[in-house]
Amino acid sequence: MTQFTCDYTEGAHEAILRRLFETNLEQTAGYGEDPYCDRARRLIRDLCRDDRLDVHFLVGGTQTNTTVIAAALRPHQGVIAAASGHINVHESGAIESTGHKVLAVPSRDGKLSALDVRRVYQAHWEDETREHMVQPGMVYLSQPTENGTLYSLAELTALWQTCQDLGLFLYIDGARLGYGLMSPACDMTLPDLARRCDAFSLGGTKQGLLFGEALVLSHPALKRDFRYFIKQRGGLLAKGRLLGVQFCAILENGLYFDLARHADQLALDLRRAFEDRGYEMLYDSRTNQQYPILPDALLAALEKDFAFAFWAKPDGEHTAVRVCTSWATEASAVKDLIRALDRWERA
Amino acid sequence: MTQFTCDYTEGAHEAILRRLFETNLEQTAGYGEDPYCDRARRLIRDLCRDDRLDVHFLVGGTQTNTTVIAAALRPHQGVIAAASGHINVHESGAIESTGHKVLAVPSRDGKLSALDVRRVYQAHWEDETREHMVQPGMVYLSQPTENGTLYSLAELTALWQTCQDLGLFLYIDGARLGYGLMSPACDMTLPDLARRCDAFSLGGTKQGLLFGEALVLSHPALKRDFRYFIKQRGGLLAKGRLLGVQFCAILENGLYFDLARHADQLALDLRRAFEDRGYEMLYDSRTNQQYPILPDALLAALEKDFAFAFWAKPDGEHTAVRVCTSWATEASAVKDLIRALDRWERA
Amino acid sequence: MTQFTCDYTEGAHEAILRRLFETNLEQTAGYGEDPYCDRARRLIRDLCRDDRLDVHFLVGGTQTNTTVIAAALRPHQGVIAAASGHINVHESGAIESTGHKVLAVPSRDGKLSALDVRRVYQAHWEDETREHMVQPGMVYLSQPTENGTLYSLAELTALWQTCQDLGLFLYIDGARLGYGLMSPACDMTLPDLARRCDAFSLGGTKQGLLFGEALVLSHPALKRDFRYFIKQRGGLLAKGRLLGVQFCAILENGLYFDLARHADQLALDLRRAFEDRGYEMLYDSRTNQQYPILPDALLAALEKDFAFAFWAKPDGEHTAVRVCTSWATEASAVKDLIRALDRWERA
Amino acid sequence: MTQFTCDYTEGAHEAILRRLFETNLEQTAGYGEDPYCDRARRLIRDLCRDDRLDVHFLVGGTQTNTTVIAAALRPHQGVIAAASGHINVHESGAIESTGHKVLAVPSRDGKLSALDVRRVYQAHWEDETREHMVQPGMVYLSQPTENGTLYSLAELTALWQTCQDLGLFLYIDGARLGYGLMSPACDMTLPDLARRCDAFSLGGTKQGLLFGEALVLSHPALKRDFRYFIKQRGGLLAKGRLLGVQFCAILENGLYFDLARHADQLALDLRRAFEDRGYEMLYDSRTNQQYPILPDALLAALEKDFAFAFWAKPDGEHTAVRVCTSWATEASAVKDLIRALDRWERA
Repeated sequence: MTQFTCDYTEGAHEAILRRLFETNLEQTAGYGEDPYCDRARRLIRDLCRDDRLDVHFLVGGTQTNTTVIAAALRPHQGVIAAASGHINVHESGAIESTGHKVLAVPSRDGKLSALDVRRVYQAHWEDETREHMVQPGMVYLSQPTENGTLYSLAELTALWQTCQDLGLFLYIDGARLGYGLMSPACDMTLPDLARRCDAFSLGGTKQGLLFGEALVLSHPALKRDFRYFIKQRGGLLAKGRLLGVQFCAILENGLYFDLARHADQLALDLRRAFEDRGYEMLYDSRTNQQYPILPDALLAALEKDFAFAFWAKPDGEHTAVRVCTSWATEASAVKDLIRALDRWERA
Repeated sequence: MTQFTCDYTEGAHEAILRRLFETNLEQTAGYGEDPYCDRARRLIRDLCRDDRLDVHFLVGGTQTNTTVIAAALRPHQGVIAAASGHINVHESGAIESTGHKVLAVPSRDGKLSALDVRRVYQAHWEDETREHMVQPGMVYLSQPTENGTLYSLAELTALWQTCQDLGLFLYIDGARLGYGLMSPACDMTLPDLARRCDAFSLGGTKQGLLFGEALVLSHPALKRDFRYFIKQRGGLLAKGRLLGVQFCAILENGLYFDLARHADQLALDLRRAFEDRGYEMLYDSRTNQQYPILPDALLAALEKDFAFAFWAKPDGEHTAVRVCTSWATEASAVKDLIRALDRWERA
Repeated sequence: MTQFTCDYTEGAHEAILRRLFETNLEQTAGYGEDPYCDRARRLIRDLCRDDRLDVHFLVGGTQTNTTVIAAALRPHQGVIAAASGHINVHESGAIESTGHKVLAVPSRDGKLSALDVRRVYQAHWEDETREHMVQPGMVYLSQPTENGTLYSLAELTALWQTCQDLGLFLYIDGARLGYGLMSPACDMTLPDLARRCDAFSLGGTKQGLLFGEALVLSHPALKRDFRYFIKQRGGLLAKGRLLGVQFCAILENGLYFDLARHADQLALDLRRAFEDRGYEMLYDSRTNQQYPILPDALLAALEKDFAFAFWAKPDGEHTAVRVCTSWATEASAVKDLIRALDRWERA
Repeated sequence: MTQFTCDYTEGAHEAILRRLFETNLEQTAGYGEDPYCDRARRLIRDLCRDDRLDVHFLVGGTQTNTTVIAAALRPHQGVIAAASGHINVHESGAIESTGHKVLAVPSRDGKLSALDVRRVYQAHWEDETREHMVQPGMVYLSQPTENGTLYSLAELTALWQTCQDLGLFLYIDGARLGYGLMSPACDMTLPDLARRCDAFSLGGTKQGLLFGEALVLSHPALKRDFRYFIKQRGGLLAKGRLLGVQFCAILENGLYFDLARHADQLALDLRRAFEDRGYEMLYDSRTNQQYPILPDALLAALEKDFAFAFWAKPDGEHTAVRVCTSWATEASAVKDLIRALDRWERA
């Protein structure tokens, strides 16, 4: 049985485990104040080409999103997000648990536009009873989105300009940022992105680490006292160096990006395989998550050997599933899946 | 200038002020533990024909909604509401400030159906990753709704049945409940309603009191320790008897319902006047709030003498406004407004 | 039975009720945006001799304290208070319900000193693991304190200087501020106090109003968006003018201060009566709350005609009670109580 | 330089790393629903000799404490703890961030007694205005305490009986539970402890794992929906099996307890060495944390080769430090430290 259900079914890339082994018995300070975290911070600043960035390391994505949003907003403010955004759907109300409303905007492709943001903003500020409503304070977007779609550099630039105009923080959830940046459809670099937001995360968990997200802060108001927020939200890892060691191991030689490119390539191979055989895709994803709409009979046949994540039921005879590749996916597994498709065609 | 903007532009009905005067120098216990509050509680239980109800008095509507919802939900639970529900739109994120998500359901008429509730419930419980999503714990509805529309007894019964089946609390926001019950279009009595929910509020602020909402609890789990919640949310009035005195004065002789009937009648007169002259209504309201869609030129003419609340701009030449009557509206004011309509027709 | 239990057993001073009657049927805007609130704001600014103050009106004291503290602190910050402070003991965890720790300092007389504040501050900032501890962000004190004691001008000046040095907000809970300022032992004026803090409340509920607290903000960071906080915490009264009308009625002719002076005088008469007869006082209060330590037999005798609030049980044969006068206390009631003391002495 | 500063300066015991390596490329379900977590749960239930226990795995201690306390308490309730308790001092207000007050009890040795609990409970329930105060809902204690001291079986039994009588949850923070149970001064077994509380944690981070705490729940009310709480607080690890694999590796052969015994032995050797040379201990610790009070000159000499954590400054010439051993401490390091003590004596 081969799992294509998600991008966190395996442990970590071997280079990371090896590094953990090598450094295991060293004695270092805790809570991220060790030389490995320092070095990983420098690596990320270098990759972003910006020395003024603050970098913190957290264990998981929900933790990262909640912490930065709670730190950015005042109690009467909310965060604008696509209705399909991770913070609106799949974090068990973590944002609300810190007192903040998610101002959800319906979106077909999982993306927000600058116009969406401006509309929410105006609907609030042009209302005479605005004090009875949650004030927009931040924009949350995911690159790539939960649907695998990508913001173009022009779209991000327009969003950033809008946020600057309106006095809103812009935060980018990059839980799968590597897969985004390495997609052939992506027209922005990491420094492009880093310059167009107040904060973003650089995901590790889904991209080859055992666990770990880097949170990169550029706005001075977000930087202040940020370690308190991490601690209060339960995210300050005692042996913080585990995060530093892992990010060093994957970043210092470009491995992070190589692994992401590998996964994207396999996912796009699968997409072409599905499309060539006439199956439609639920979303126009160019990254490591693909969403084919399959006849139920085909799906049943495939599921004897391959596992996918259920996504939607567009009609009584078809099912959309998520087919996910990762840093750990073997090319042979993809070939096997394509071969199984063919077998079914011929049968 | 005559105000039709809302139902809280005046003070209180004279009978209430008089009673406050008469009892002013009596010395009583604070925080709602006085004989007037006790008597008002008994009056409400009698009106509901249920001796087991707990009744608390709070100052305002947002306070009442927030307090009962915070008391009912566990941290991982949310409250299902129509997207236009007061708690979702006009309480500055008060519900979220207590840690809970409002699970908003789009609705044309401002009402939720039993089917809506069942769908939200199933979408949650049928998802394998349900623990990543907010669990529905309560249903919030307003009678009448924020659009002036009414639930029928059959609709409420279906909702109540569904909530009972699914283990959800049902709470009814009755900030304008008198206006609802006294509408000729309403087919339920107060005991009908009281038997079909776990908690409801009986609004005073908009119905003749200076201020004050009665919160009626029937579910034992909500009753427990409820005064702590009121205190913690800042709602335990030191001179609590002010609430008891007012509710006694308006309830013991049916004044509460007489005033509501009066306002509804005037509002329906206005509705007929608008419709007879060919103006459409934005919502099918049968209560004290009416929402005519008026040509901008007519509106400009009327606004020389009358004030309304802006509601929506359906097209470039029309505006929907809220025209609100109340316990304090004089029949002559309504006649003046209808006469002004006629003047404009003839001009 | 005469109540000396607290200062909110009656309704309101007659002048206030009369004014509510006179203005009752006027139509005004809601939520504190009416001419009466505007006029009351101007009166308070004039009394403080500072045109730059923002003034908001809220219904109750817990609401006022919670709202201003929640608005001032960031999530990782706490508020320094005497352990006996109202926010630490008698608000049902309202401060904690907004996410903030009360950093309680033991205090004999209910007061904080500048040195106390500096010690809490240093204990935090000199600790290497400070990010694991709540950061002090504000100082809360009550004038007069919950024990009836008073800060001198020199003490307040030192606290204010310290807060300015250390970057802490200073908030003064003035639920009984009138009783404090009118005490013969008080050496500060209202402008003195207003110039030595970032925010303070001017209580109405306990000083002659039906209900209502004025919250006065001088620090620009607190002023911003403050109405949102009031709404979110359920404190934005629909018929907000009721607060404005009451504060106008009591402030425009000095009535507020006359009533407080009256209550203080009666309380000090009582104190002298107790002390002359050899009874000790639990606290050195110079305001309207007195805390005599009485033999249990005497107390039992007095309680046939007078009610007090139980305070403490210093030993098996004595009880300390709170004897509270107010704007509504009649001189004859105090004389009756003193006569009863004498009767017991002679018996 | 040898670190005795804390028990999390190294990575993990080699057996754990090896197991992570061996299982690294297996594909498993996420979020703790894998066979390794299942097996680790069974091991813990077996060690506790109770099949009905629910076991969850979280990453860190603050996360664990906050999650279980937030799940247990209703909004108006607080948790009783020794003033020196971790949740009161060193979690950056995490408990308060979930809305709950820590009801702190002063304690010399870091322990709470059954009498302490009963007093806090009675002070609340015997007060007539109890609804104005936070209601006690849970008792928090640490075994061993933050001072290294231990509860005896009799003390724990009395606390448990008291909590049962009073309807309070009892939660035991076992971040260093292994070091506690393996101390020669400890008279309870793991099943003894498990039967005398509603929930406890079994710490991994400080006892040989890279990271990870097991949270063991016995009370049915705590078990319900607990995974939602973990997710909402950001603690549901995507690759949850990392926790299961580690706990399996350390528990299935008794390694967890062997490592703890080793650390305790070395710590007690150090204690004797200090005491034999006439140095007093700040606390009577029998576990892996020792707190000698040293002359400043001696400390300065030792700190050339050894690092400790500063703890207190009892007078101008002495300093109390924490000397901490762990699963990773080598016997030779302890001998070196004792030899350094001797060198200073002779000099």
